[in-house]
Amino acid sequence: MLAERAPANLPDGQVPWWPSRYGRDDQLGSLNEITPAHVVAAARLVREGEVFDLGRILDSNVPRFPGRFWQQTLVSNAHLNNQRRPQGTEGGWGKNQVNWLIELATGTFQIGTQLDGLNHLQIGDRFYNGWRTRDIVEDWGTSKLGIETVPPIMTRGVLVDVARARGVARLQAGDVISVEELESILGAQKTPVRPGDAVLFHTGWGSLWEDHEAFGAGEPGIGMAVAQWLVEKRVALTGADTWSYGAVPSEDPERPFLVPQTLNVKHGLFIMENLATEVLANASVYEFLFCLTHHKTRGSTGAVIAPAAVI
Amino acid sequence: MLAERAPANLPDGQVPWWPSRYGRDDQLGSLNEITPAHVVAAARLVREGEVFDLGRILDSNVPRFPGRFWQQTLVSNAHLNNQRRPQGTEGGWGKNQVNWLIELATGTFQIGTQLDGLNHLQIGDRFYNGWRTRDIVEDWGTSKLGIETVPPIMTRGVLVDVARARGVARLQAGDVISVEELESILGAQKTPVRPGDAVLFHTGWGSLWEDHEAFGAGEPGIGMAVAQWLVEKRVALTGADTWSYGAVPSEDPERPFLVPQTLNVKHGLFIMENLATEVLANASVYEFLFCLTHHKTRGSTGAVIAPAAVI
Amino acid sequence: MLAERAPANLPDGQVPWWPSRYGRDDQLGSLNEITPAHVVAAARLVREGEVFDLGRILDSNVPRFPGRFWQQTLVSNAHLNNQRRPQGTEGGWGKNQVNWLIELATGTFQIGTQLDGLNHLQIGDRFYNGWRTRDIVEDWGTSKLGIETVPPIMTRGVLVDVARARGVARLQAGDVISVEELESILGAQKTPVRPGDAVLFHTGWGSLWEDHEAFGAGEPGIGMAVAQWLVEKRVALTGADTWSYGAVPSEDPERPFLVPQTLNVKHGLFIMENLATEVLANASVYEFLFCLTHHKTRGSTGAVIAPAAVI
Amino acid sequence: MLAERAPANLPDGQVPWWPSRYGRDDQLGSLNEITPAHVVAAARLVREGEVFDLGRILDSNVPRFPGRFWQQTLVSNAHLNNQRRPQGTEGGWGKNQVNWLIELATGTFQIGTQLDGLNHLQIGDRFYNGWRTRDIVEDWGTSKLGIETVPPIMTRGVLVDVARARGVARLQAGDVISVEELESILGAQKTPVRPGDAVLFHTGWGSLWEDHEAFGAGEPGIGMAVAQWLVEKRVALTGADTWSYGAVPSEDPERPFLVPQTLNVKHGLFIMENLATEVLANASVYEFLFCLTHHKTRGSTGAVIAPAAVI
Repeated sequence: MLAERAPANLPDGQVPWWPSRYGRDDQLGSLNEITPAHVVAAARLVREGEVFDLGRILDSNVPRFPGRFWQQTLVSNAHLNNQRRPQGTEGGWGKNQVNWLIELATGTFQIGTQLDGLNHLQIGDRFYNGWRTRDIVEDWGTSKLGIETVPPIMTRGVLVDVARARGVARLQAGDVISVEELESILGAQKTPVRPGDAVLFHTGWGSLWEDHEAFGAGEPGIGMAVAQWLVEKRVALTGADTWSYGAVPSEDPERPFLVPQTLNVKHGLFIMENLATEVLANASVYEFLFCLTHHKTRGSTGAVIAPAAVI
Repeated sequence: MLAERAPANLPDGQVPWWPSRYGRDDQLGSLNEITPAHVVAAARLVREGEVFDLGRILDSNVPRFPGRFWQQTLVSNAHLNNQRRPQGTEGGWGKNQVNWLIELATGTFQIGTQLDGLNHLQIGDRFYNGWRTRDIVEDWGTSKLGIETVPPIMTRGVLVDVARARGVARLQAGDVISVEELESILGAQKTPVRPGDAVLFHTGWGSLWEDHEAFGAGEPGIGMAVAQWLVEKRVALTGADTWSYGAVPSEDPERPFLVPQTLNVKHGLFIMENLATEVLANASVYEFLFCLTHHKTRGSTGAVIAPAAVI
Repeated sequence: MLAERAPANLPDGQVPWWPSRYGRDDQLGSLNEITPAHVVAAARLVREGEVFDLGRILDSNVPRFPGRFWQQTLVSNAHLNNQRRPQGTEGGWGKNQVNWLIELATGTFQIGTQLDGLNHLQIGDRFYNGWRTRDIVEDWGTSKLGIETVPPIMTRGVLVDVARARGVARLQAGDVISVEELESILGAQKTPVRPGDAVLFHTGWGSLWEDHEAFGAGEPGIGMAVAQWLVEKRVALTGADTWSYGAVPSEDPERPFLVPQTLNVKHGLFIMENLATEVLANASVYEFLFCLTHHKTRGSTGAVIAPAAVI
Repeated sequence: MLAERAPANLPDGQVPWWPSRYGRDDQLGSLNEITPAHVVAAARLVREGEVFDLGRILDSNVPRFPGRFWQQTLVSNAHLNNQRRPQGTEGGWGKNQVNWLIELATGTFQIGTQLDGLNHLQIGDRFYNGWRTRDIVEDWGTSKLGIETVPPIMTRGVLVDVARARGVARLQAGDVISVEELESILGAQKTPVRPGDAVLFHTGWGSLWEDHEAFGAGEPGIGMAVAQWLVEKRVALTGADTWSYGAVPSEDPERPFLVPQTLNVKHGLFIMENLATEVLANASVYEFLFCLTHHKTRGSTGAVIAPAAVI
C-alpha cells in the first residue's frame, strides 16, 4: 500500500507530502491537535451561557458554485398512506390520528455553510496522506477520509475580525490578509492562537450573501503566508464568511484555490465556508467555546453545518 | 390567525393544546428550558476533555422505515470539467492541478440518527401550537417549525441506562419503562433530572442495528406515564437508541406512536432517535455536557445528527 | 372491492362515474378505442416517410408548475473507477480503454412535453373507475393506473390548427375553443375525427415557451363542450401546445382544471401537454400516423415524451 | 475545432475513426441510414394492427449495474396544498375538488430497457466523431450527442431468434453469435437485413431478469465479427435482451465491452439493452415496423424506453 502511494508524477514541483505528521494511516489530520486538556480549557470559556449560531439557512435560493444545487420536496403520509389504515380513520392513523411529514432532499453538501472533508480537494489525483483516487474512491463516496470519519469537535475558537481592523464593512474580492495583519489583530483582541484552536476570519464578505452574482464573483481571504502560519501554529480548523477559503482571485492566478488545496491535501487542516461570522463580530466576541457536530453520511465530501460559539 | 387555529374537530377527545406554555407563536418548544445558567452549569461538567460520539453512520444500508431511503453518488470534476481548463493541464485545474469531488445525495432526513422537528408529527392535521397543515405546509417544506428554527443545543445530558438496571443486554420490543423504574435508576446513578436537560435512554435495542428485520419489528421504550413525567420535569429534549421513541407496539395498540406524537405536538418536546447510547453505557457515563449542532435546511422535518457527549 | 368503491360523499353533485364504459377493472381507458383495423389504417397514412418530432427538450430551464423541477448531473467512471482497473491503464478500463458516462437525474415527469397517467388527477380522492387513494396509492407510486400500464400507442393523428383558422399567431389565455369552431376547422382541413384518433390542438401558445412568466400565466384551450364532444367521438387521446389542457382560467373560475379532470377521471381519456404542434402547423400537416412509446416507470403519474407524427 | 480533435495518443493501436462516414459534425450516426423510402416500406409491414411492447417495467427492484439505481416517491397535493385553497374546500381545490399526484424520481437512465446515447461510451476520452471529454462534457450533461439529439425512430425491425435456432431456452454467458449463424438464421426466417433496419437479437437471457445475480454475472451476445457485419450492412440500430450488448465475458478478456464501444464510438451505431424480445419470439414475429420515441432530456447518456413492434 505504501509502495502504491509512492511519489510519482507529482505536479508543480511537489515533493511527497506524506506520511503526514500524524502518521501514514491518519485520517484525522489537524483535529489530532485537540487534546483533552484543550477541550477542558475551552469549556472553561463558557461564563455567560450565550450560544451563537454560525450557520446560514440552506434552501434552493442560496448562492452556489456552478453545477451544485439543493432541492427539497415535502411528502405527507396523510393522503398517501390511507390504504394502510383501517377504514373510518380518514383523519390519520389510529384513534390518535397520527400523521407525519417527511422531506425528500437532493443535492450536494458542498453548498451553504459547510465543513469540507479531506476527501474534497486533490493535488492531481492525490489526497491527504498521499492517497490516490484509485485508493479510496467508490461510486457511493470515498472509503477513507469521508465526512463520517470526522468526530464531534469541541475546542477553543478565535474570531479574527479583519473588517473591523481595516475599518470597513467588508474587504474586497482578492484582498489578501497578511501575517503581520493577522498578528496585529490577535494582539489587539488579546486572543493568541494556540494549538488545537478553531480560527475564524470575519471579512464581511457574507453581507453579500443575498447578491449571488457579487458574492460569487470573488472573495477576500488569507494567502499562502497565513496558511503556512496556521499550519505552524497547529490550529485544528479554520474558516471564514466566504464561499471558498482564501482570496479569489488567488495570489498566483495560475494556481487557483491553492490555499485550501494546500491546507487540506498537504496538511490535513480542516476548513469551513460560509460561516455567519457577523453574529460574533457584531457582539465583539473573539474567544469562545467552538462546538461542531454534523451528519455522518458515509463517504461524503462535506457536511452542511451550523457550528455553535458559546461564551 | 388565532381564530383560524380555533379548536374544531379535534380527534380522540382532545381539547386544544395551544397556546403552548411558551406562547402562542413559539416555535422553540422545550428548548426554551435551556437557560444561560444551565448552559454554564453544563459546561462545568467537562473535566476530562473526552468527547463521545452519539451518531451512527448513515448510508444506503441502514435500517429504514417503509418509503424512506438514502442514496449517494460521488461526482468528480477531474474528468468532467476538462473543457474549462486550458489545454495541457490534463491532470487538474491550474498549475497546482487542483481537483475536487462532490457528492450527490438524495433521500430523507427521517433516517439514521436523527432529530425530529416539531413539523414532523401531527394530531389529525395539527402541529405544535395548533398550527394546521394549511397554515404552514408548502411544497418545499414548512414555513414554521422547520429544522432550521432549531438553534445549536448545549445543555446538561443524562443517560438512563435501563438495560444495565434490568441486567439485560437489551429490553424486548414493547417493553415499557415505568416512572418508578426511571426514578430508581436516576437515584442509583445519582443523576437527578433538571429542567433543560437532555434525557437519553439506553435500552440496548441499538445492538440489533445490523439486523434490519429484528430492529424494525418493534422497540422498547417509555410509555405515556414517563412521557408526562418528562414534561413535568421540563426536560429540553429526549432520545433513545431506537428507531422511533416510546415502546412499539405501543401501550394502547389502537394509538400508535402516541408517545412521540404527544411529546412533539402537545408539548413541543424534542426527540432524537437511533442514538448510539452504548458508547456512554459502555463507559458508565451518566452525566455530561450534551452538544448538538445540525444542518439548517429550510423547512425540513428532521436532521441527520451525531450529537456529542463531553465529560 | 366494488363495495369499497361504492358512491359516497362525491363532491359537486357528482354521481358515480364507474364502472367506466370499458369495464369496472379497466385501466386502459380511451386507448381501448384503438382497434387493430385502426392501427392498420393509420399505418397506411405513411406515404412520404417524413417523421415529425412533437417533443420539447427537457432541462432545468423549462417553464414549470410550482413545486416541480428537473435536475441532471453527469457522472463519469473515468476518474472514479480507477481503483477497479489494473494499474497502468490510467486512460480507461482494459486495453481498449473503455470509459462511460451516466447521468443522475431527479425531478418529476409532470414537466415538459408529457403524457398524463390516469393516476395523476382526482375528483376528491377518486380516480378513473372510482378507485380511491386508499385503493391504489403507495409510497413509491400507484399500484393501478401507473404510466407503465399504458402500452405503446400507434394510431391516426389529427392536428386541429386553431391559430391558423383564427388568423393569429396564438390564441389568448382563457380563450375557449367551441364545438362549432372545431367542426368548422375539421371540415376545412378535410380531417374528420374517428374513434381511436389522437386529436392535437395547435393554439400557438407554445411560442411563449421561452417566456416562463407569460407562458405559465394562463393558456387557451378547449372548454367542457369540446371535452364532451371528444368523449362522444371516442377519441383515444388528445393534447395541445399548452402546459395544462383546456383554457386557463377555466370557463367556470370556481372549477379549476375541470376539463382535464373530467376527461381523465370520468372518461379515462388520455391527455398530452406541451406538444410541439408548430412543427406540424408550419408544414400544414393535419393527418398522420401518430406514434408514442414511453418510459414504463412503475407507478409514475406521467411520462416525459416526444411523440412522432409520420406522413 | 478539427485541429483540436486531431489524432493523438489513441489507445490500443487505434487510428482516427473520424470524421465518420456521415460527416465530421454528424451526431445522428447510424440513424442516417433510415431513408424516407425505408420508413414508407416499414409502415407497409403493418397488416394486422397488432402492437408488441418491447420494454420492461422499471422500478427499484430491477437488476442494475454497480452504482446505478432508480427510486421514486409519490407526492400528493391533496394534503400539502391545503393552504392554497379557500377554506371550506378540504376535499380538493375548487368546487370540483381537483387533486393531483406527482412523483419524484431519481436515478440514472442507464438502467432497465434503455437506448444508449452516443455520449455514453468512450475510447479513452473520445466519443463518436472524435469528440473528446473536453469538447462536449458539462456538469449537467453533454453539449453534443445527448439523447435529445436522437429523433423519433420508425423503421423496419428484424428479430434474430438465436435461442430458437440453437434449440435452447437461453444461450450461456459468454456465448458468441457468429456471422455464419446469424446469416443462417436470417435465411431460415426469410428476413434479410437491409440498410436502416433495427436488428434485435433474442438470446433468451431475459428469462433471468428476476434472478439479479445470475442475470448480471455475464451474458451471451454477438462478437466483433457480427459487429463488423452490422456496420457493413448499414443497420440503423441494434439491441438484445441482455443488460449490455455483446458477449460478456468478451471474446478478448483484456478488452471488456469492446463490441458496444466499437459500435457506438467508431461507427455511431445505436444500441438498445434489456429488450423484452421474448414477446416477439413467442409469437414467431421476425419482421415488423419498429417504432421508438423517448424522453428528450438534455444531455442525457441514455433513455428508458419501451419500443413498439407492429405487424
